[in-house]
Amino acid sequence: MSGPPASLFVRALRGEPVERYPVWMMRQAGRYLPGYQAVRARTPFLDLCRSPDLAAEVSLEPVERFGVDAAIVFADILLTADAMGVAVEFPATGGPRIGRPIRTPADVRRVHEPDARRTAAVAATVARLRRALPADRAVIGFSAAPFTLCAYLIEGGSSRDFWRTRAFAYQHPDAFEELLGRAADALVPYLREQAAAGANALQLFDTWGAVLEPALFERWVVPMAARVIEGLGADRPPVIYFPGLGAADRLEAAAATGAEALSLDWQTSLGRAYARVGTRVRLQGNLDPTVLLADPGTIGRAVERMLAEVPPGRPHLVNLGHGILKETPPEHAAAFVRAAQAFRPAASPCP
Amino acid sequence: MSGPPASLFVRALRGEPVERYPVWMMRQAGRYLPGYQAVRARTPFLDLCRSPDLAAEVSLEPVERFGVDAAIVFADILLTADAMGVAVEFPATGGPRIGRPIRTPADVRRVHEPDARRTAAVAATVARLRRALPADRAVIGFSAAPFTLCAYLIEGGSSRDFWRTRAFAYQHPDAFEELLGRAADALVPYLREQAAAGANALQLFDTWGAVLEPALFERWVVPMAARVIEGLGADRPPVIYFPGLGAADRLEAAAATGAEALSLDWQTSLGRAYARVGTRVRLQGNLDPTVLLADPGTIGRAVERMLAEVPPGRPHLVNLGHGILKETPPEHAAAFVRAAQAFRPAASPCP
Repeated sequence: MSGPPASLFVRALRGEPVERYPVWMMRQAGRYLPGYQAVRARTPFLDLCRSPDLAAEVSLEPVERFGVDAAIVFADILLTADAMGVAVEFPATGGPRIGRPIRTPADVRRVHEPDARRTAAVAATVARLRRALPADRAVIGFSAAPFTLCAYLIEGGSSRDFWRTRAFAYQHPDAFEELLGRAADALVPYLREQAAAGANALQLFDTWGAVLEPALFERWVVPMAARVIEGLGADRPPVIYFPGLGAADRLEAAAATGAEALSLDWQTSLGRAYARVGTRVRLQGNLDPTVLLADPGTIGRAVERMLAEVPPGRPHLVNLGHGILKETPPEHAAAFVRAAQAFRPAASPCP
Repeated sequence: MSGPPASLFVRALRGEPVERYPVWMMRQAGRYLPGYQAVRARTPFLDLCRSPDLAAEVSLEPVERFGVDAAIVFADILLTADAMGVAVEFPATGGPRIGRPIRTPADVRRVHEPDARRTAAVAATVARLRRALPADRAVIGFSAAPFTLCAYLIEGGSSRDFWRTRAFAYQHPDAFEELLGRAADALVPYLREQAAAGANALQLFDTWGAVLEPALFERWVVPMAARVIEGLGADRPPVIYFPGLGAADRLEAAAATGAEALSLDWQTSLGRAYARVGTRVRLQGNLDPTVLLADPGTIGRAVERMLAEVPPGRPHLVNLGHGILKETPPEHAAAFVRAAQAFRPAASPCP
C-alpha cells in the first residue's frame, strides 16, 4: 500500500528498527484525567461510548496532554455483548452488570449474531481519530478476545476468579465451545469495521484468559483468539494480543494466535519473555501501574530498569502491565511517558 | 526420632516412594460441609477459631467423612494480625476486615511483637487433632507467609489485585521491608508452637505473592518466607510453601525458600512444574476447584488426567489448586478423594 509513512508505533509493531520505543498506556483515556471527568460529569457512560464526537474527544486527551504515540478508541468491551442480545447495564458506580447472564447451555441460544448498528459508533470514532491525528500517531482499535467476552457473559460482570466461567467450561464443554465460537464470529466484523475506518492496529484483550487451566487455555482461549485474527483477512492491520493476567508461563501458546505482538502483564518477567518468544513476536508492556502512584523519580527509574531488559535491536512497545489506575495523578502519567520517550535503546549488536 | 511410623502423607512429603498418593483439600474444613455449617450456626467465626474443642471438631469432619490423609487445623491466617496489634473483624457476611489498615510508614510502628496468648488456641487445637487421629493420618499446621499477611494488613481485607500493597512497596520500600520482617519474626513462634503441639507438617500460604512483579517477588516474597522456614530450626516438621495464584513462572524462585514441597495453583501446568523443579522439591496440587462442581464422572476423569502428568516414581501430594468452593456438594468432594486414592502410580522406571 502507498500512503503516508507508517508511524513509529506501527513500524515498531512490524519489527522494524526504531530510534526510540513508542509508548501508550492501557486505559489511558480514563477516570484519572480531568477532561474525561468533565465529559462524564454530564454524559452517562454508554452515551459517551455511542457518541463519536465525545468518544474521540476523550480518546485524544492523552495524546494532547502527554504526547503518547498512539490513541486507542474509547469504547467498552461489552458493547459487543449488547449487540449480541445480552443486555448490559453500566451503573454510575461499580462495573458493568449483565442482568441475565449465560448460565446454562439453553442460555447460549440467546446469544445471536451481532446487530452492527449497536456498535457502529466505535468505527465512527476511529474515523474521527484518524482524521484528527497526524500520520505519526497511530490509532488503535480493540475488542475483547472471545474467551474474555464469554467470561463476562457467564459471570455477569467482573470477578476475582471467574469461578462460574471455569465451572461452566467443565460442566458444559460443548455449550462453552459453541458460545466461544459465536463470540469469535461476532468480533470479526466488529474489528473489521474499525480497521476499515482507519485503525492502524488492533488490540485483542484476553484479560482473564489465564483463569483457565493451561490445557484449556490451549484448547479454547488461544484457538478462539486465533480464529478472530484469521477471520480479519490478509489485509488486516497488525494485531496485539493481551493474554491477560497471570499468563507469564503461557507465552509460547499465546504467540501461536498469529498476533504480531503480545501485551504482557506486570507479573511477567520482560527479560524472560524476550528470551522465550521475543524472536517470534513483538512485546508490549509491562510496568506495574501502581508504580505511577510513586514519585516521578521512582517512575523514571522503574522505566529505565524495565527497558534495560529489552535485548538490543528489538523494537519494544512501552506500556503498563494493566490499565492505568484512576488514582494516578496525571503528572505521574506524564513522567512515565517522558521517561519512555527519553530512553535510547542500545544499538543492535554488529552482525 | 523414634515413635510411630510416619503417615503416608509425611512419607510422600519426605520424598519416599509411596504405594498411592496421599490427598487432602485446601479449605477442606469449611462452609460446604453440613457439620461445619451446624457449628457455625451457633458459633461466631472467631469464637470457633479460639475454641480448641470446636475447631478440632470441624477439622476432623473431612477426615471422618471422606477419609482424607491429613487434617489441617481450623484457624484463620489473620489471627496473627490480631496478635500483632492490628484488630481484625470477622463480619457475618463477607471476608474479614481490618478497621485501621497499614497505609503509611508510621503505621508500621503499630505492628508489635505477637501476644502469643491471642493465638494459643491454635496449638491447642493441633494437640487435640494429634490425639484424636491415628498415626496414619497427618496433622497440618499453617500460617500465612509474611508477604501475604502484610498484603492483608495494608489492603485491609482481600482484594482482586492488592494494588495498595503494590503501591506501598514502590512508595515505601524501607517501611515495607520492615513490615515484612516484623511479620516473619511473628510467624516463627506461632508455627513453632503448632509443631511442638504435634503438627506433622506446616503449610505456609503465600496466596497473593505473585501480585508483585517478578523482581520484587525474588527480593521480598521468597526471602521472607525463607526467613520463617529457617527460623523454625533444624528439628522442624516438613514445610509446604504455596507461592499462590499466578506463580507458574516463578517455581524456581519459590523452591529456593527451603520448603520440602510447593503447593501449586490450578493455573500451573503440573507436568511442566515437575520438569522444572520436581527433582528439588515435592509438589502438591492442583485440580481446579471448580471441577468439583461438575458430575462425579467428570471429577474422576479430571483427577486421572492430572495425575498422569506426575513422573513415575515421584510421590505426589494430591490437592486442589485453591480452596474448595462453598458451593461444592459434599458427595463431589468424596468423589475427588476416592479418585485420588484409587489412582495407582506407575512404578519407577528400572535404574
